[in-house]
Amino acid sequence: MNCSIISIGTEILFGQIVNTNTVYLSQELNSLGINVYNHFTVGDNEGRLKDVLDYALSKSDLIITTGGLGPTQDDLTKETIAEVAGKELEMHQPSFERICNYFKNINRKMNENNLKQAYLPKDSIVLNNNCGTAPGFIIEFDEKIIISLPGPPKEMKSMFGFVKDYLKTKSKHTIHSKILRFFGIGESALETAIMDLIDQQSNPTIATYAKEGEVSVRITAKAENEDKASKMILPVIKEIENRLGEYIYSYNDEELVEVVAKKLIEKKIRISLAESCTGGLIAAKLTSISGISKSLDRSIVTYSNKAKIEELGVKEITLKKYGAVSEETAREMVLGLKAVTGSDICLSVTGIAGPDGGTKEKPVGLVYIAIAYRENIICKQYNIFGDRNRIRNYTSMLAFNMIRKILKNK
Amino acid sequence: MNCSIISIGTEILFGQIVNTNTVYLSQELNSLGINVYNHFTVGDNEGRLKDVLDYALSKSDLIITTGGLGPTQDDLTKETIAEVAGKELEMHQPSFERICNYFKNINRKMNENNLKQAYLPKDSIVLNNNCGTAPGFIIEFDEKIIISLPGPPKEMKSMFGFVKDYLKTKSKHTIHSKILRFFGIGESALETAIMDLIDQQSNPTIATYAKEGEVSVRITAKAENEDKASKMILPVIKEIENRLGEYIYSYNDEELVEVVAKKLIEKKIRISLAESCTGGLIAAKLTSISGISKSLDRSIVTYSNKAKIEELGVKEITLKKYGAVSEETAREMVLGLKAVTGSDICLSVTGIAGPDGGTKEKPVGLVYIAIAYRENIICKQYNIFGDRNRIRNYTSMLAFNMIRKILKNK
Repeated sequence: MNCSIISIGTEILFGQIVNTNTVYLSQELNSLGINVYNHFTVGDNEGRLKDVLDYALSKSDLIITTGGLGPTQDDLTKETIAEVAGKELEMHQPSFERICNYFKNINRKMNENNLKQAYLPKDSIVLNNNCGTAPGFIIEFDEKIIISLPGPPKEMKSMFGFVKDYLKTKSKHTIHSKILRFFGIGESALETAIMDLIDQQSNPTIATYAKEGEVSVRITAKAENEDKASKMILPVIKEIENRLGEYIYSYNDEELVEVVAKKLIEKKIRISLAESCTGGLIAAKLTSISGISKSLDRSIVTYSNKAKIEELGVKEITLKKYGAVSEETAREMVLGLKAVTGSDICLSVTGIAGPDGGTKEKPVGLVYIAIAYRENIICKQYNIFGDRNRIRNYTSMLAFNMIRKILKNK
Repeated sequence: MNCSIISIGTEILFGQIVNTNTVYLSQELNSLGINVYNHFTVGDNEGRLKDVLDYALSKSDLIITTGGLGPTQDDLTKETIAEVAGKELEMHQPSFERICNYFKNINRKMNENNLKQAYLPKDSIVLNNNCGTAPGFIIEFDEKIIISLPGPPKEMKSMFGFVKDYLKTKSKHTIHSKILRFFGIGESALETAIMDLIDQQSNPTIATYAKEGEVSVRITAKAENEDKASKMILPVIKEIENRLGEYIYSYNDEELVEVVAKKLIEKKIRISLAESCTGGLIAAKLTSISGISKSLDRSIVTYSNKAKIEELGVKEITLKKYGAVSEETAREMVLGLKAVTGSDICLSVTGIAGPDGGTKEKPVGLVYIAIAYRENIICKQYNIFGDRNRIRNYTSMLAFNMIRKILKNK
């Protein structure tokens, strides 16, 4: 099956938003064994949308649209698709009720425009929206399929779960993927290490992906059923593990923070943090994981020197002699934190996130991370390249990776 | 002039990379008064590229392509454009020499494939590549223009400087936009309040956009020059301000946290935070802004009750009687924070981010935010809908908005 993805929204053509929906959908569709032929973006304009729909239908069996299902006047996706498919719009009672309830629950007055969202093309399969008001829909006609999803990524993704099941019923094969996640190795080094595997294999296929600071390997097999596909994938995983096992932190496409948080909770380990350059980011990421209150005691974000002294007992003389960004300060921070909290694991971070504040001796990107665990204190120095955002983010990942390594041996 | 952007590269259709080139080009083209009609993505496949080129040429006067100018076999952009434009490829001597020199300089052996990059369609305007080997080109034919740029963003952007000057000679207008940002009002309520303005206007145009928790209005005018366009925009801003001024927090498309951080730094106000349900998110956002070390003293992320008692002096009896999520606890947190830090503004947050931990009396999404400023303490209760992520994020925005309101009167 060949697919075209159409993103609808003038804001994309203005360059106001980065279109991450197509990235997500392309990955998902490819993993289902569906070839993505084209991406299109078109503004909130009925004539131009119709043109692109006609063109895409002439090239692909399956069209997925995102966006233009909102309550405002310039949201015209449904009307246009209905016209192209030769269907009327009709009120969908369950969606009507769901939208009414939605507004009741959030205690906000419903606008007449919002009701427009309950109208859908006749004969569609309606896709419930669990995160917003606009329902999506699937419509089949003339051996073509159009699937229309809302634009906000969260709503789109939550709806895609159902779409995935639907698309699986349309395909003869099952495509099954496993995603291994790596930290501490670059994409090209990883690719070089498994190039022979990538070249040899056509089923399963092996592909590498890079995101900020981490790399993933996706192993995809096509087979009659998931069980058979899984069995084809297993030896490939084993071989990659043999070569690069030390860098692998997840066999299930999890975030590093997720892996660490789950382990902390499972092992009932109390943790406390003292953050300077990351400014609360490590705690914010950790607390994005539900259930972490069982493990995280506190994070003391000591952004000023005053706070480092008052909260953690860092000595004034240390700050003067070695500076706030130094191994000495990182160690005193973590010792102070341990004294205050008594947590099983204490972690401190201090560094220069930039863009200002760097010197020749202590450049932007210099970061110290210290961990106190049992009787040991480990302190590591890193030099991270990139802008403020990247330095802070990568520091948080380095911190999680240090915690992960400690937990591994537990 | 109308433009279509065509991104060429199978890796985009696999979802392996996020296409930021189109974001950059769309912004640049819009600022030049060129309407971006469509974005297309197509793989490294001659037939499909030709199809899309033909379609785009039937709709737009100007086509900009990115990608497919590399040295490998599957890079077919030049060949396809030459065919569509009815031009031969010919060797471009200066590019040939530049590529030879490039490899000499980096001390790498030149591949025969690299020489392929010196061939360009006859009669093109050649665009030098200062960051890589592939030259770009502009070709004019049948009152159409095709501009072909390399895919790597750095090379593309550096080449676009010249393209910009070229395009300015082709355009009569300037397009100028102002973006107002709102907090505390939904998109459809906002649209309803200014619907008559949206309907009346064709130049300037008015459009609304929604992102998580905030709404923007873009006012765009087309005129001979930026000064005239600005003058056309001004009365529209005034009218929107008359109606909805209380919700506007930026006239320059800034984030809420940015507006608040700048004001704190500018007014030399010391701020400290005590976070529970946001788990460091407010601090993390604030510290994403460079220079905030002048203003932020600390954030104490008291995730456990123990930490609330030890760090902020919250009374055990308060936690027992009213619970950690209560106005009483929020008030004691902020009072304790003020006693410890003496900061000008102290802010505390406690709430239930979910998905677990909610009860009938205290449902998921119940949040208290308290601010101590001068002799006053304000404490507000909110009921926020959505998942854990949204509740935490929206809480941080509510906190910033409370700080913004206090700073407004300073």
